[in-house]
Amino acid sequence: MDVGFIGLGHMGAPMARNLLKAGHHLTVYNRTRSKAETLAREGVQVADRVADACQGEILITMLADDPAVEGVVFGDCGALSALRRDAIHISMSTISVALSDHLTEAHGKAGQGYIAAPVFGRPEAAAAAKLFIIAAGADAMLKRCHPLFDAMGQETFVISIRPSEANLVKLSGNFLIASVLESLGEAFALVRKSGIDPHRYLNILTSTLFSAPVYRTYGPIIADEKKPADGFKMSLGLKDIRLALAAADALAVPMPVASLVRDHFIEGVAQGESDADWSGLARLAARRAGL
Amino acid sequence: MDVGFIGLGHMGAPMARNLLKAGHHLTVYNRTRSKAETLAREGVQVADRVADACQGEILITMLADDPAVEGVVFGDCGALSALRRDAIHISMSTISVALSDHLTEAHGKAGQGYIAAPVFGRPEAAAAAKLFIIAAGADAMLKRCHPLFDAMGQETFVISIRPSEANLVKLSGNFLIASVLESLGEAFALVRKSGIDPHRYLNILTSTLFSAPVYRTYGPIIADEKKPADGFKMSLGLKDIRLALAAADALAVPMPVASLVRDHFIEGVAQGESDADWSGLARLAARRAGL
Amino acid sequence: MDVGFIGLGHMGAPMARNLLKAGHHLTVYNRTRSKAETLAREGVQVADRVADACQGEILITMLADDPAVEGVVFGDCGALSALRRDAIHISMSTISVALSDHLTEAHGKAGQGYIAAPVFGRPEAAAAAKLFIIAAGADAMLKRCHPLFDAMGQETFVISIRPSEANLVKLSGNFLIASVLESLGEAFALVRKSGIDPHRYLNILTSTLFSAPVYRTYGPIIADEKKPADGFKMSLGLKDIRLALAAADALAVPMPVASLVRDHFIEGVAQGESDADWSGLARLAARRAGL
Amino acid sequence: MDVGFIGLGHMGAPMARNLLKAGHHLTVYNRTRSKAETLAREGVQVADRVADACQGEILITMLADDPAVEGVVFGDCGALSALRRDAIHISMSTISVALSDHLTEAHGKAGQGYIAAPVFGRPEAAAAAKLFIIAAGADAMLKRCHPLFDAMGQETFVISIRPSEANLVKLSGNFLIASVLESLGEAFALVRKSGIDPHRYLNILTSTLFSAPVYRTYGPIIADEKKPADGFKMSLGLKDIRLALAAADALAVPMPVASLVRDHFIEGVAQGESDADWSGLARLAARRAGL
Repeated sequence: MDVGFIGLGHMGAPMARNLLKAGHHLTVYNRTRSKAETLAREGVQVADRVADACQGEILITMLADDPAVEGVVFGDCGALSALRRDAIHISMSTISVALSDHLTEAHGKAGQGYIAAPVFGRPEAAAAAKLFIIAAGADAMLKRCHPLFDAMGQETFVISIRPSEANLVKLSGNFLIASVLESLGEAFALVRKSGIDPHRYLNILTSTLFSAPVYRTYGPIIADEKKPADGFKMSLGLKDIRLALAAADALAVPMPVASLVRDHFIEGVAQGESDADWSGLARLAARRAGL
Repeated sequence: MDVGFIGLGHMGAPMARNLLKAGHHLTVYNRTRSKAETLAREGVQVADRVADACQGEILITMLADDPAVEGVVFGDCGALSALRRDAIHISMSTISVALSDHLTEAHGKAGQGYIAAPVFGRPEAAAAAKLFIIAAGADAMLKRCHPLFDAMGQETFVISIRPSEANLVKLSGNFLIASVLESLGEAFALVRKSGIDPHRYLNILTSTLFSAPVYRTYGPIIADEKKPADGFKMSLGLKDIRLALAAADALAVPMPVASLVRDHFIEGVAQGESDADWSGLARLAARRAGL
Repeated sequence: MDVGFIGLGHMGAPMARNLLKAGHHLTVYNRTRSKAETLAREGVQVADRVADACQGEILITMLADDPAVEGVVFGDCGALSALRRDAIHISMSTISVALSDHLTEAHGKAGQGYIAAPVFGRPEAAAAAKLFIIAAGADAMLKRCHPLFDAMGQETFVISIRPSEANLVKLSGNFLIASVLESLGEAFALVRKSGIDPHRYLNILTSTLFSAPVYRTYGPIIADEKKPADGFKMSLGLKDIRLALAAADALAVPMPVASLVRDHFIEGVAQGESDADWSGLARLAARRAGL
Repeated sequence: MDVGFIGLGHMGAPMARNLLKAGHHLTVYNRTRSKAETLAREGVQVADRVADACQGEILITMLADDPAVEGVVFGDCGALSALRRDAIHISMSTISVALSDHLTEAHGKAGQGYIAAPVFGRPEAAAAAKLFIIAAGADAMLKRCHPLFDAMGQETFVISIRPSEANLVKLSGNFLIASVLESLGEAFALVRKSGIDPHRYLNILTSTLFSAPVYRTYGPIIADEKKPADGFKMSLGLKDIRLALAAADALAVPMPVASLVRDHFIEGVAQGESDADWSGLARLAARRAGL
């Protein structure tokens, strides 16, 4: 397919590369052009402007946050005006439910399609085409997108015909991960202060009731008190919890654990840890315990 | 081995039965004698008094809480006075760190051994000899106990030579389970109120980062809004969180998620749900959201 | 002075009336015109459109929330385009720090003045000209506004030259009131469930360390489990805590009590209590305790 | 009256002195005898043992915590065995509801009277006979105690005939003070980080809705970031919140603000601030905000 791709960060770049490998024709745009040029050598077309990446039948955006997506879509010469009728915008960024609803409406009025398809997985998973893709939107459009999803992910879960529900699932998933980080942080502070070997403790958890990727991935980071350099930043964790809480507020759903996790992310940011991996929640728990 | 066994509740009865099957000689005592008599038909000796169950080389206790264990051990004609020197008391109940330390000291002074060996697993796991056993105490004593652990569990994790550390691991594990119940409850309230199908949502969780027994066991209960009749009671969940917080307080470790979960258990108890399964935390989260 | 006044709700109407009594010339605008017409009989000029209320040297706005103020100021033929150079917009609504900063900038560019002057006090205090006014902005402008403040309030506190700091003080004040309501709610739930007479309890509080208006005003409402009809709505309390938390997030300040209060306001809204007085926080605390 | 007085700490010593001034005959006991001897020069009798201070018609205890009171009352040759029938034990310490109920029963069985009469006020108030006394117990006994209360306090509030209700009121009062400290700490962190002058801010609070002793006493300490040397220790604040939460748990009353304050006291203790004044809660809030 003829695909435009905007946003070549840690996640976007490997995703674009996998589309290329699968035989699709790609035109990419990135605000910092150098990142796009690395891909040029591999066979993608590099666009000078957003609009130039909006000439195909599909546009994929994989950007940092709401303002970035708004800029690309609603800006002068943005995607909304540049995309042809019947083109589909696949928004894979982790954005707010409200913006996703807004995009659904705006693209609909313009005769364009809109699919929300946020992903679970870290950069390594993106590189290995092992992402989990949460997709929502009109069935016929989803069908057109499936070859692209297959090229980027290991499994695609279709939620419903309302795109923003995929965003809500993504946000609630990040909330669940963050709540595991917080709880593990408290539990490790407790057992470490008691003198128990943290690796022995972790082994019990992951050998028994907690044998899931989220515990296997973050448990060792916490047990070793590591600071992964290429992690998911605390500032982004804060952004996502903020969006989850905004969605919950709009639906009148109290989420006290989410509020607590948000406060702790803010504490991390206030103490200069914005760029640290979000497992830093555990380090904050340890610090509060005087460790 | 010649084993005394005190406490034949939902967990104790199947555990005793597995010891019997493995060829050990059992003398059992239960406050409500009728429960002991059921086992009598299967070949165990029924004791009239605590002391009569303390004549062998091992005493296992599997009781509801600290006061029950204190009654059995420190009461008139209790285990402390009845056990012979070199006998070992294996305490498998979920009790406080403080009581476990106290038992270590008291049995030690009496020339007796003391092992803490609390378990993870529900009654079905106890019946199938699939418990996970967390054991701590002196190495030589642990070695003597291993055949018994093997008869009751699928795996034994040895923590350290200080018995109470096994209790702390057990309590922190129950805290982690309860924190998962709370977080899932909040996430399900959010997605349900948004109109997302809860089973579709659960499938995503357990197919991706949350594919662990704790999510697979409790996820469907929460998604279906079931009230399992034979569950782990909210009042017991409250008891365990209280003990975890008491241990954390003694070590000066703040555990805000544990505090929050404790408040919600109390709310459940205040609203007449003491005897409901502890996954009722999710029902409370839904109720707070007006669902 | 020649004053335009927009927003004639429970607070705005009595405030406008006091300006009139003090001899100022008033042109008022209200979305629902009937409220303006009541005042017409007392001598004010009624404007048909926002712009018609912006012809004097001062414009006062007293509106429900950020969108209402944005509509009045930035809308077509809004205050920004209608006010003459050197006119001053006094914003007395409880709005966000971010909007106040935005208004400072926008009016400044238009050569207009901007003063933030939110108030503490309920409708009775507004009627009695007993409001406390928290004002911030350029000194020379504040001086011009003082006669108006004196006509509406019992005391004016000048914070600084940056208007949005007055808004932050107002929001943090509402946070402090809400935190008192929450804490009192918990304390009353405790003493009531214990069988202690709530009035006797309240008398101790207000006779000793807690002899302040916030306790004297809300204590009896809580002790009597009253639902004041003309109170400050829970939905508005939620709005203000949301704004306080947004300001705190922007400054990287964790406010866990504010987060907790926000969750409880959302719980109230979810349970159909949006329009109840915000002291309903205490009723929710009682309900959680099974009272 | 002939009064025994046990516990001559920061509070007990000035209280005893005021009884002496009022013409009562005092026999005092203190574990650290030197403190008693200072008073000896002023005319009190110094007892060598607890029992020697239990020979009069009244025994007053003013001790640090439950274990101290238990030691004095239930120890060998303790007050329970030493007091004569019809003597009254006035327990003025801040102790648990459970212990107060236990003392009521034990003294009752021994034919002795028991009054709970905890106080509000700092050492200066004790010295000035300006304490607020919260008293509960049988009417006839209370009547006998009133001259003593009048000598030590500015006002006595009688709660009910059940002594432990006075303890609950005292504990809930300390919870309310601690919740004010926490909320003020969060609010000051917010306004300080915004650049607002903290004294100007405090002046607004105490001039308007928050003009109560609790805000007037602690507001300046927090605004000035002072560390009062002779304050009420964080470790004692933690003790009292623990007792309030224990009483709330026993009555099935969730108190989320109390839980949050407890976590913060534990954080303070973990960070070496056990002996700091409990207004240190505000310092912790500032630290979390990176101030």
